[in-house]
Amino acid sequence: MLIMGLDPGTAITGFGLIDARGGCYDLVEYGTLRTSPPASAADRLVRLYDALIALLQRCKPEQIAVEELFFNRNSSTAVPVGQARGVLLLACAQQNIPISEYTPLQVKQALTGYGRAEKRQIQYMVARLLRMEAPPKNDDAADALAIAITHAHYYNGRKLRGEL
Amino acid sequence: MLIMGLDPGTAITGFGLIDARGGCYDLVEYGTLRTSPPASAADRLVRLYDALIALLQRCKPEQIAVEELFFNRNSSTAVPVGQARGVLLLACAQQNIPISEYTPLQVKQALTGYGRAEKRQIQYMVARLLRMEAPPKNDDAADALAIAITHAHYYNGRKLRGEL
Repeated sequence: MLIMGLDPGTAITGFGLIDARGGCYDLVEYGTLRTSPPASAADRLVRLYDALIALLQRCKPEQIAVEELFFNRNSSTAVPVGQARGVLLLACAQQNIPISEYTPLQVKQALTGYGRAEKRQIQYMVARLLRMEAPPKNDDAADALAIAITHAHYYNGRKLRGEL
Repeated sequence: MLIMGLDPGTAITGFGLIDARGGCYDLVEYGTLRTSPPASAADRLVRLYDALIALLQRCKPEQIAVEELFFNRNSSTAVPVGQARGVLLLACAQQNIPISEYTPLQVKQALTGYGRAEKRQIQYMVARLLRMEAPPKNDDAADALAIAITHAHYYNGRKLRGEL
Protein backbone atom coordinates (compact mmCIF):
# COMPACT_ATOMS: atom_id res chain seq x y z
CA MET A 1 0.00 0.00 0.00
CA LEU A 2 1.42 3.36 -1.06
CA ILE A 3 1.33 5.82 1.85
CA MET A 4 2.36 9.44 1.51
CA GLY A 5 3.27 11.50 4.56
CA LEU A 6 3.01 15.27 4.19
CA ASP A 7 4.42 18.03 6.38
CA PRO A 8 2.83 21.27 5.17
CA GLY A 9 4.36 24.74 5.25
CA THR A 10 4.02 27.89 3.16
CA ALA A 11 7.69 27.96 2.14
CA ILE A 12 8.56 24.25 2.28
CA THR A 13 6.24 21.23 2.31
CA GLY A 14 7.93 17.90 2.97
CA PHE A 15 6.67 14.70 1.39
CA GLY A 16 7.64 11.07 1.88
CA LEU A 17 6.24 8.08 0.00
CA ILE A 18 6.57 4.54 1.34
CA ASP A 19 5.23 1.19 0.24
CA ALA A 20 3.91 -0.69 3.26
CA ARG A 21 3.54 -4.45 2.94
CA GLY A 22 2.59 -5.93 6.29
CA GLY A 23 5.11 -4.77 8.85
CA CYS A 24 7.78 -4.05 6.23
CA TYR A 25 8.21 -0.63 4.69
CA ASP A 26 10.01 0.26 1.45
CA LEU A 27 11.12 3.79 0.73
CA VAL A 28 9.77 4.95 -2.63
CA GLU A 29 10.59 8.65 -2.74
CA TYR A 30 10.90 11.73 -0.59
CA GLY A 31 11.54 15.42 -1.08
CA THR A 32 10.19 18.92 -0.67
CA LEU A 33 7.88 21.26 -2.51
CA ARG A 34 9.15 24.84 -2.34
CA THR A 35 7.45 28.11 -3.17
CA SER A 36 9.70 31.07 -3.87
CA PRO A 37 9.62 33.90 -1.30
CA PRO A 38 8.90 37.02 -3.40
CA ALA A 39 5.36 35.87 -4.17
CA SER A 40 2.39 37.00 -2.06
CA ALA A 41 0.82 34.62 0.45
CA ALA A 42 -2.03 33.89 -1.96
CA ASP A 43 0.35 33.27 -4.90
CA ARG A 44 2.43 30.90 -2.78
CA LEU A 45 -0.72 28.95 -1.89
CA VAL A 46 -1.57 28.66 -5.61
CA ARG A 47 1.94 27.33 -6.31
CA LEU A 48 1.73 24.91 -3.39
CA TYR A 49 -1.67 23.68 -4.61
CA ASP A 50 -0.43 23.16 -8.18
CA ALA A 51 2.71 21.36 -6.96
CA LEU A 52 0.64 19.13 -4.64
CA ILE A 53 -1.86 18.16 -7.33
CA ALA A 54 1.04 17.31 -9.69
CA LEU A 55 2.77 15.26 -6.95
CA LEU A 56 -0.41 13.32 -6.04
CA GLN A 57 -1.20 12.59 -9.68
CA ARG A 58 2.34 11.42 -10.36
CA CYS A 59 2.84 9.31 -7.19
CA LYS A 60 -0.75 8.05 -6.81
CA PRO A 61 -0.63 7.40 -3.03
CA GLU A 62 -3.51 5.29 -1.70
CA GLN A 63 -3.44 6.91 1.73
CA ILE A 64 -2.23 10.25 3.06
CA ALA A 65 -1.01 10.96 6.58
CA VAL A 66 -0.46 14.38 8.16
CA GLU A 67 0.42 15.56 11.62
CA GLU A 68 -2.28 17.11 13.80
CA LEU A 69 -1.42 20.66 14.66
CA PHE A 70 -1.50 22.14 18.13
CA PHE A 71 -0.48 25.67 18.94
CA ASN A 72 -0.56 26.48 22.60
CA ARG A 73 2.02 29.22 22.45
CA ASN A 74 4.16 30.91 19.82
CA SER A 75 1.06 31.10 17.67
CA SER A 76 2.47 33.65 15.22
CA THR A 77 3.05 30.78 12.77
CA ALA A 78 -0.33 29.08 13.39
CA VAL A 79 -2.19 31.05 10.70
CA PRO A 80 0.33 30.65 7.82
CA VAL A 81 0.85 26.97 8.65
CA GLY A 82 -2.93 26.54 8.93
CA GLN A 83 -3.34 28.17 5.51
CA ALA A 84 -0.85 25.79 3.88
CA ARG A 85 -2.49 22.87 5.69
CA GLY A 86 -5.94 23.91 4.41
CA VAL A 87 -4.70 23.93 0.81
CA LEU A 88 -3.08 20.53 1.38
CA LEU A 89 -6.23 18.95 2.84
CA LEU A 90 -8.24 20.43 -0.04
CA ALA A 91 -5.90 19.02 -2.71
CA CYS A 92 -5.89 15.52 -1.13
CA ALA A 93 -9.68 15.46 -0.68
CA GLN A 94 -10.22 16.66 -4.26
CA GLN A 95 -8.10 13.69 -5.42
CA ASN A 96 -10.26 11.40 -3.24
CA ILE A 97 -7.33 10.13 -1.19
CA PRO A 98 -8.22 9.25 2.43
CA ILE A 99 -6.38 11.41 4.98
CA SER A 100 -5.38 10.29 8.48
CA GLU A 101 -4.09 12.60 11.21
CA TYR A 102 -1.70 11.74 14.02
CA THR A 103 -0.45 13.68 17.00
CA PRO A 104 3.28 14.26 17.55
CA LEU A 105 2.97 11.85 20.50
CA GLN A 106 1.60 9.11 18.23
CA VAL A 107 4.48 9.66 15.79
CA LYS A 108 7.04 9.34 18.58
CA GLN A 109 5.35 6.24 19.99
CA ALA A 110 5.07 4.56 16.59
CA LEU A 111 8.69 5.14 15.63
CA THR A 112 10.50 4.72 18.92
CA GLY A 113 8.01 3.31 21.41
CA TYR A 114 8.73 6.35 23.57
CA GLY A 115 6.43 9.40 23.64
CA ARG A 116 9.16 11.84 24.60
CA ALA A 117 11.71 10.81 21.98
CA GLU A 118 13.93 13.51 20.53
CA LYS A 119 13.93 14.62 16.91
CA ARG A 120 17.31 12.96 16.26
CA GLN A 121 15.99 9.65 17.54
CA ILE A 122 12.95 9.88 15.22
CA GLN A 123 15.20 10.62 12.26
CA TYR A 124 17.46 7.71 13.15
CA MET A 125 14.47 5.36 13.24
CA VAL A 126 13.14 6.68 9.93
CA ALA A 127 16.45 5.75 8.28
CA ARG A 128 16.59 2.41 10.10
CA LEU A 129 13.03 1.30 9.30
CA LEU A 130 13.40 2.32 5.66
CA ARG A 131 16.90 0.83 5.37
CA MET A 132 18.42 4.16 4.31
CA GLU A 133 22.14 4.83 4.74
CA ALA A 134 21.40 8.11 6.55
CA PRO A 135 18.28 10.11 7.52
CA PRO A 136 17.07 12.68 4.95
CA LYS A 137 19.01 15.91 5.35
CA ASN A 138 15.86 17.97 5.08
CA ASP A 139 13.82 18.00 8.31
CA ASP A 140 10.47 18.46 6.55
CA ALA A 141 11.07 15.44 4.33
CA ALA A 142 12.21 13.40 7.35
CA ASP A 143 9.05 14.42 9.25
CA ALA A 144 6.93 13.47 6.24
CA LEU A 145 8.48 9.99 6.15
CA ALA A 146 7.97 9.64 9.91
CA ILE A 147 4.26 10.41 9.60
CA ALA A 148 3.93 7.95 6.68
CA ILE A 149 5.54 5.21 8.80
CA THR A 150 3.24 6.17 11.71
CA HIS A 151 0.19 5.65 9.53
CA ALA A 152 1.47 2.29 8.27
CA HIS A 153 2.06 1.25 11.89
CA TYR A 154 -1.42 2.17 13.18
CA TYR A 155 -3.08 0.94 9.99
CA ASN A 156 -1.46 -2.49 10.41
CA GLY A 157 -2.52 -2.50 14.06
CA ARG A 158 -6.14 -1.82 13.16
CA LYS A 159 -6.01 -4.50 10.47
CA LEU A 160 -4.55 -7.10 12.89
CA ARG A 161 -7.29 -6.29 15.40
CA GLY A 162 -9.90 -6.81 12.66
CA GLU A 163 -10.96 -3.16 12.70
CA LEU A 164 -10.38 -2.71 8.97
CA MET B 1 -15.97 49.04 -8.63
CA LEU B 2 -17.27 45.75 -7.25
CA ILE B 3 -15.58 44.93 -3.94
CA MET B 4 -16.21 41.69 -2.06
CA GLY B 5 -15.37 41.38 1.61
CA LEU B 6 -14.87 37.87 2.92
CA ASP B 7 -14.78 36.60 6.52
CA PRO B 8 -13.54 33.01 6.36
CA GLY B 9 -14.43 30.17 8.70
CA THR B 10 -14.69 26.39 8.40
CA ALA B 11 -18.37 26.30 9.32
CA ILE B 12 -19.54 29.72 8.12
CA THR B 13 -17.85 32.12 5.72
CA GLY B 14 -19.44 35.56 5.46
CA PHE B 15 -19.42 37.51 2.22
CA GLY B 16 -20.50 41.05 1.37
CA LEU B 17 -20.48 42.65 -2.07
CA ILE B 18 -20.58 46.43 -2.53
CA ASP B 19 -20.31 48.72 -5.51
CA ALA B 20 -17.99 51.61 -4.67
CA ARG B 21 -18.28 54.71 -6.81
CA GLY B 22 -16.06 57.43 -5.37
CA GLY B 23 -16.99 57.91 -1.73
CA CYS B 24 -20.44 56.38 -2.19
CA TYR B 25 -21.13 52.71 -1.59
CA ASP B 26 -24.07 50.64 -2.83
CA LEU B 27 -24.97 47.34 -1.26
CA VAL B 28 -25.16 44.62 -3.91
CA GLU B 29 -25.50 41.40 -1.93
CA TYR B 30 -24.43 39.72 1.27
CA GLY B 31 -24.78 36.31 2.87
CA THR B 32 -22.98 33.26 4.17
CA LEU B 33 -21.49 30.07 2.78
CA ARG B 34 -22.11 27.16 5.14
CA THR B 35 -20.60 23.69 5.24
CA SER B 36 -22.55 21.03 7.08
CA PRO B 37 -20.97 19.71 10.30
CA PRO B 38 -20.93 15.90 9.81
CA ALA B 39 -18.28 16.13 7.06
CA SER B 40 -14.57 15.77 7.83
CA ALA B 41 -12.33 18.84 7.94
CA ALA B 42 -11.00 18.04 4.47
CA ASP B 43 -14.52 17.52 3.03
CA ARG B 44 -15.66 20.83 4.51
CA LEU B 45 -12.71 22.58 2.86
CA VAL B 46 -13.69 21.04 -0.49
CA ARG B 47 -17.27 22.30 -0.03
CA LEU B 48 -16.03 25.75 0.98
CA TYR B 49 -13.74 25.86 -2.05
CA ASP B 50 -16.52 24.83 -4.46
CA ALA B 51 -18.95 27.35 -2.92
CA LEU B 52 -16.34 30.14 -3.11
CA ILE B 53 -15.46 29.46 -6.75
CA ALA B 54 -19.18 29.47 -7.62
CA LEU B 55 -19.71 32.73 -5.68
CA LEU B 56 -16.74 34.49 -7.31
CA GLN B 57 -17.77 33.35 -10.79
CA ARG B 58 -21.36 34.50 -10.23
CA CYS B 59 -20.61 37.87 -8.56
CA LYS B 60 -17.41 38.73 -10.47
CA PRO B 61 -15.87 41.05 -7.83
CA GLU B 62 -12.99 43.19 -9.11
CA GLN B 63 -11.28 43.33 -5.71
CA ILE B 64 -11.35 41.15 -2.61
CA ALA B 65 -10.74 42.29 0.96
CA VAL B 66 -10.10 40.05 3.97
CA GLU B 67 -9.15 40.71 7.55
CA GLU B 68 -5.59 40.03 8.69
CA LEU B 69 -5.51 37.39 11.36
CA PHE B 70 -3.67 37.68 14.64
CA PHE B 71 -3.77 35.07 17.34
CA ASN B 72 -1.94 36.03 20.47
CA ARG B 73 -3.95 33.86 22.78
CA ASN B 74 -6.85 31.42 22.53
CA SER B 75 -5.09 29.87 19.57
CA SER B 76 -7.15 26.68 19.52
CA THR B 77 -9.13 28.15 16.60
CA ALA B 78 -6.06 29.51 14.76
CA VAL B 79 -5.42 26.34 12.76
CA PRO B 80 -9.01 25.67 11.54
CA VAL B 81 -9.53 29.36 10.72
CA GLY B 82 -6.11 29.41 9.00
CA GLN B 83 -7.10 26.35 6.95
CA ALA B 84 -10.33 28.01 5.76
CA ARG B 85 -8.41 31.21 5.05
CA GLY B 86 -5.83 29.28 2.99
CA VAL B 87 -8.56 27.78 0.80
CA LEU B 88 -10.13 31.23 0.43
CA LEU B 89 -6.86 32.91 -0.62
CA LEU B 90 -6.23 30.05 -3.05
CA ALA B 91 -9.68 30.35 -4.67
CA CYS B 92 -9.40 34.16 -5.07
CA ALA B 93 -5.85 33.96 -6.48
CA GLN B 94 -6.86 31.21 -8.90
CA GLN B 95 -9.61 33.54 -10.18
CA ASN B 96 -6.97 36.30 -10.55
CA ILE B 97 -8.79 38.70 -8.23
CA PRO B 98 -6.47 41.04 -6.27
CA ILE B 99 -6.67 40.53 -2.51
CA SER B 100 -6.09 43.22 0.10
CA GLU B 101 -5.72 42.60 3.82
CA TYR B 102 -6.63 44.93 6.67
CA THR B 103 -6.15 44.74 10.41
CA PRO B 104 -9.14 44.92 12.80
CA LEU B 105 -7.80 48.36 13.79
CA GLN B 106 -7.96 49.57 10.19
CA VAL B 107 -11.54 48.31 9.89
CA LYS B 108 -12.58 50.16 13.04
CA GLN B 109 -10.80 53.34 11.93
CA ALA B 110 -12.30 53.23 8.43
CA LEU B 111 -15.87 52.70 9.62
CA THR B 112 -16.03 54.79 12.77
CA GLY B 113 -12.85 56.89 12.89
CA TYR B 114 -12.13 55.26 16.25
CA GLY B 115 -9.70 52.36 16.66
CA ARG B 116 -11.40 50.95 19.73
CA ALA B 117 -14.96 50.97 18.43
CA GLU B 118 -17.25 48.17 19.59
CA LYS B 119 -18.78 45.54 17.32
CA ARG B 120 -22.25 47.11 17.61
CA GLN B 121 -20.90 50.46 16.47
CA ILE B 122 -19.24 48.84 13.42
CA GLN B 123 -22.49 47.10 12.52
CA TYR B 124 -24.43 50.34 12.91
CA MET B 125 -22.03 52.10 10.54
CA VAL B 126 -22.20 49.25 8.00
CA ALA B 127 -25.98 49.69 7.83
CA ARG B 128 -25.70 53.50 7.74
CA LEU B 129 -23.04 53.69 5.00
CA LEU B 130 -24.90 51.16 2.85
CA ARG B 131 -28.31 52.74 3.55
CA MET B 132 -29.74 49.51 4.97
CA GLU B 133 -32.73 49.54 7.31
CA ALA B 134 -30.85 47.41 9.84
CA PRO B 135 -27.44 45.72 10.08
CA PRO B 136 -27.24 42.14 8.75
CA LYS B 137 -28.36 39.71 11.42
CA ASN B 138 -25.46 37.40 10.71
CA ASP B 139 -22.18 38.62 12.26
CA ASP B 140 -19.98 37.01 9.60
CA ALA B 141 -21.88 38.72 6.79
CA ALA B 142 -21.75 42.04 8.68
CA ASP B 143 -17.98 41.64 9.16
CA ALA B 144 -17.60 40.85 5.46
CA LEU B 145 -19.42 44.06 4.51
CA ALA B 146 -17.30 46.04 6.98
CA ILE B 147 -14.08 44.79 5.41
CA ALA B 148 -15.41 45.56 1.90
CA ILE B 149 -16.19 49.14 3.00
CA THR B 150 -12.74 49.37 4.61
CA HIS B 151 -11.09 48.45 1.33
CA ALA B 152 -13.20 50.99 -0.61
CA HIS B 153 -12.19 53.65 1.95
CA TYR B 154 -8.43 53.01 1.78
CA TYR B 155 -8.55 52.43 -1.97
CA ASN B 156 -10.19 55.83 -2.48
CA GLY B 157 -7.61 57.39 -0.17
CA ARG B 158 -4.75 55.97 -2.19
CA LYS B 159 -6.41 57.11 -5.42
CA LEU B 160 -6.91 60.65 -4.08
CA ARG B 161 -3.25 60.80 -3.05
CA GLY B 162 -2.27 59.70 -6.57
CA GLU B 163 -0.85 56.37 -5.37
CA LEU B 164 -3.02 54.32 -7.75
